[in-house]
Amino acid sequence: MLSLRLTSFTHLLSPPSSAAIARRSPAILRRRHHLRPRPLAASFSSQSAAAETKDRVENSKSRVAERVITPRSQDFNAWYLDVIANAELADYGPVRGTMVIRPYGYAIWEAIQEYLNVKFKETGHSNMYFPQFIPYSFIEKEASHVEGFSPELALVTIGGGKELEEKLVVRPTSETIVNHMFTQWIHSYRDLPLLINQWANVTRWEMRTKPFVRTLEFLWQEGHTAHATPEEAEKEAIQMIDIYTRFAFEQAAIPVITGRKSKVETFAGACKTYTIEAMMGDKKALQAGTSHNLGQNFARAFGTQFTDENGLREHVWQTSWAISTRFVGGIIMTHGDDAGLMLPPKIAPIQVVIVPIWKKDDEKGAVLNAASSVKDALQRSGIKVKLDDSDQRTPGWKFNFWEMKGVPLRIEIGPRDVASGSVVISRRDIPGKQGKVFGISMEPSNLEAYVKDKLDEIQSSLLERAIAFRDSNIIDVSTYDDLKAAISQGKWARGPWSASDEDELKVKEETGATIRCFPFEQPQGIKRCLMTGNPAEEVAIFAKSY
Amino acid sequence: MLSLRLTSFTHLLSPPSSAAIARRSPAILRRRHHLRPRPLAASFSSQSAAAETKDRVENSKSRVAERVITPRSQDFNAWYLDVIANAELADYGPVRGTMVIRPYGYAIWEAIQEYLNVKFKETGHSNMYFPQFIPYSFIEKEASHVEGFSPELALVTIGGGKELEEKLVVRPTSETIVNHMFTQWIHSYRDLPLLINQWANVTRWEMRTKPFVRTLEFLWQEGHTAHATPEEAEKEAIQMIDIYTRFAFEQAAIPVITGRKSKVETFAGACKTYTIEAMMGDKKALQAGTSHNLGQNFARAFGTQFTDENGLREHVWQTSWAISTRFVGGIIMTHGDDAGLMLPPKIAPIQVVIVPIWKKDDEKGAVLNAASSVKDALQRSGIKVKLDDSDQRTPGWKFNFWEMKGVPLRIEIGPRDVASGSVVISRRDIPGKQGKVFGISMEPSNLEAYVKDKLDEIQSSLLERAIAFRDSNIIDVSTYDDLKAAISQGKWARGPWSASDEDELKVKEETGATIRCFPFEQPQGIKRCLMTGNPAEEVAIFAKSY
Repeated sequence: MLSLRLTSFTHLLSPPSSAAIARRSPAILRRRHHLRPRPLAASFSSQSAAAETKDRVENSKSRVAERVITPRSQDFNAWYLDVIANAELADYGPVRGTMVIRPYGYAIWEAIQEYLNVKFKETGHSNMYFPQFIPYSFIEKEASHVEGFSPELALVTIGGGKELEEKLVVRPTSETIVNHMFTQWIHSYRDLPLLINQWANVTRWEMRTKPFVRTLEFLWQEGHTAHATPEEAEKEAIQMIDIYTRFAFEQAAIPVITGRKSKVETFAGACKTYTIEAMMGDKKALQAGTSHNLGQNFARAFGTQFTDENGLREHVWQTSWAISTRFVGGIIMTHGDDAGLMLPPKIAPIQVVIVPIWKKDDEKGAVLNAASSVKDALQRSGIKVKLDDSDQRTPGWKFNFWEMKGVPLRIEIGPRDVASGSVVISRRDIPGKQGKVFGISMEPSNLEAYVKDKLDEIQSSLLERAIAFRDSNIIDVSTYDDLKAAISQGKWARGPWSASDEDELKVKEETGATIRCFPFEQPQGIKRCLMTGNPAEEVAIFAKSY
Repeated sequence: MLSLRLTSFTHLLSPPSSAAIARRSPAILRRRHHLRPRPLAASFSSQSAAAETKDRVENSKSRVAERVITPRSQDFNAWYLDVIANAELADYGPVRGTMVIRPYGYAIWEAIQEYLNVKFKETGHSNMYFPQFIPYSFIEKEASHVEGFSPELALVTIGGGKELEEKLVVRPTSETIVNHMFTQWIHSYRDLPLLINQWANVTRWEMRTKPFVRTLEFLWQEGHTAHATPEEAEKEAIQMIDIYTRFAFEQAAIPVITGRKSKVETFAGACKTYTIEAMMGDKKALQAGTSHNLGQNFARAFGTQFTDENGLREHVWQTSWAISTRFVGGIIMTHGDDAGLMLPPKIAPIQVVIVPIWKKDDEKGAVLNAASSVKDALQRSGIKVKLDDSDQRTPGWKFNFWEMKGVPLRIEIGPRDVASGSVVISRRDIPGKQGKVFGISMEPSNLEAYVKDKLDEIQSSLLERAIAFRDSNIIDVSTYDDLKAAISQGKWARGPWSASDEDELKVKEETGATIRCFPFEQPQGIKRCLMTGNPAEEVAIFAKSY
């Protein structure tokens, strides 16, 4: 199953920069140990209060120097890697192409998991777990499956000190082993539908890797279902892509375009692939989630049959669907700016950071007391809040640090605020003074309502901004020349399409763009294929992609 | 790290039956497709209402025949495998020694995860994720580590179609890769303590496998921490074994004995290993969780250092701790009986099952309405409830089925109950009429309070019963002859011990029993070593184990 990854064609078109990353040059990673902020894990943990003030002057001096994030407009890829390193989202593992997901990055993944896990269960799916070692012979059973995956397999050939009789595949996806087990569990129509999901790691030997977007091992959920009728399977595939779409819009504030893949881009083995396509800050498309209607292809390869109500044996109809840690990359590349990460409140591990400010030692106690009360009040009302009360950094350093980490709201409390019983609140999404409001009452119920309101506003604002960006970068085209012009400007092209697979491959070769999808939302009216001039039923979206 | 598994010595003493299981004979699996109840996944899922009554007579005939669980007293191992198959907790995977965790079994694991995950975060730990592929050279860095693990490694030698330059170990545990990364994240004392955890799969090429208890791949959490002082590391190791102990007692109703491993049984590489040891229904011990004080051993092997407050470079002090899917096996073997599984309410995926009963079709509507209201009321109050309203099985079949699945409480509702506005409630832990109470009012607040009360009672009762069983099977011994007698009766022996490692190995060879731990709770008074007669500071517990 090719869900959540590009086909081999698109691989060839990946930018050279991502190949360079795979070499893991420290310079490219842009980690500067001597300057970088304190590791996140330590700031998350119950640190021993070994507060030292002697560092303060030094820290404040190096404050500007610490901002080592390449401007986004200057080099998007370098910016992306800088954000990941500086915000401590992930690190490279010792094996080429592997990634260590650090606590702050993992917390974003946990927010994704929490939301989806509830939705999967509400729609009747049960979690379970399949072994990750798959006999090699299983992979060979479905012809297009082995063709798609064999170049990317990691193989275990030695176990317990002995050469294995049959080499084992470290799962790249689980359709084969799932079908092997389904044949044992499915007997009659009463065993259907069978609706399951697993949260797991998967391995694909990718040549060109990029943190979160394409790694040798990644985390995902893979849903697998079996049904008695093709209609039910189709309904399921659509239901799951709808859940992904809602998640992207409502939680991640990513205005994905949902649609159907072209035949060329459909997962080999599936009847239909549905996808959510997101526009990144560099206007490249990211396939952020897929849902496949597998028809009876795997069922035939594995003999997954049931006895229907009339006593006849039939193959089941299946779906599979997945979202992976790649989505975290999509969040970074949708919302981030020159200052670093910008997180939608609904998936932010920290929604509000409180920075206490004092100059004289006799101010410290009152400021910290007030900050602590504000923290407790917000926490009680379910807001994810962090009080950065460390002595080791200046307020200015903290402002930059938490902006870089993408925390949606910052509360500042100084001696004058304490005296007036109020706080200052700054929005991450509106830089400088415009995003800053003074004199918000500290009174818990007032503050709580204000903060919740602002978080909602930021959530909506991020989505609106992303929608505006997306829509201003999609160009409606009616000829192939239009399409080429749009793509060469780095934009997405939307135009009627009914041409052949060969024409589609020609577009890919000549422009680097692929059909991302035939969107569910289609314009009205008569359409003529941009390539052939023949009648076309649908518009397609073309773009370069990750 | 040898946490959660037996040392190689104990392997030699494993009963032949578990070796036989590894061969996966269908007879041993005791799956009888033609007779077995409907698969769980289907009953969990939003099934199409293709209710057929023609099966009813047939089903009711085969009802007795379906109960294929070997009596526990007759063959504990066969009983265990029968329960796993019939309650649909797990299935064998296609690769020898692997296990598919089915939805009902996985839901128990999820209950374990939910509780522990909260406790880990409350104590300052952050979740993250390390790659599962570890360069082989890492494993070799810690001498005892490679010695302990090399016989059990699964090795990836081919990736992306090519022979790899360095073979990769599929993680058996993560101390090595964790230390490799810690060296990059830890610089000064301000970066400490570093407190992290990961939920992951691990692979150990075990020769003798048994579902949940010992599988080639299993799921676990592994905590890894680094500290500035040995005192802090020791405190952490104790804190985590305490969390495991509380979990075992309060959630799983398993009265584990918590203590320190002997030097022989300590994880090679650790200074101290703490363990929770549980007595199974066959009186064998199960090591159900471990917490290691690793001292500076891995830090020295990997050069994990920090600059202390005086500017000196020092190695960090570390811990690691783990609980795995093995714990699910412990729950089965602690509480189950001849009728099948018996789950403590706090970790039961279904706490209450409602079985509606009707004979005539005109009774059905009213009964199902009442059952449905009861379900909604209980669900609203946070109780995990399942209404088994299928037409395909008789109430008697359902009673047996849900008893076998270990559901703590059953509510029966028939036409007379509807008329009187009451229900009948049966406890899983008290068989027959004694566990049955008639005439409980259906009124929601009354019923909810009654059910919650009963669930608490069952939870306590399971723990009390397990404590009584445990205590009646531990014999205080003061000589080696006493010890041999106790072990030969299949019991645990507790006696003063200050003898040599050689003596400890002699006990193992002669009796099959090992020192499970020196319990934290020690008797008062002067003690003499049961083996040598010399003064002894502590009693040890000896038992045969899984």
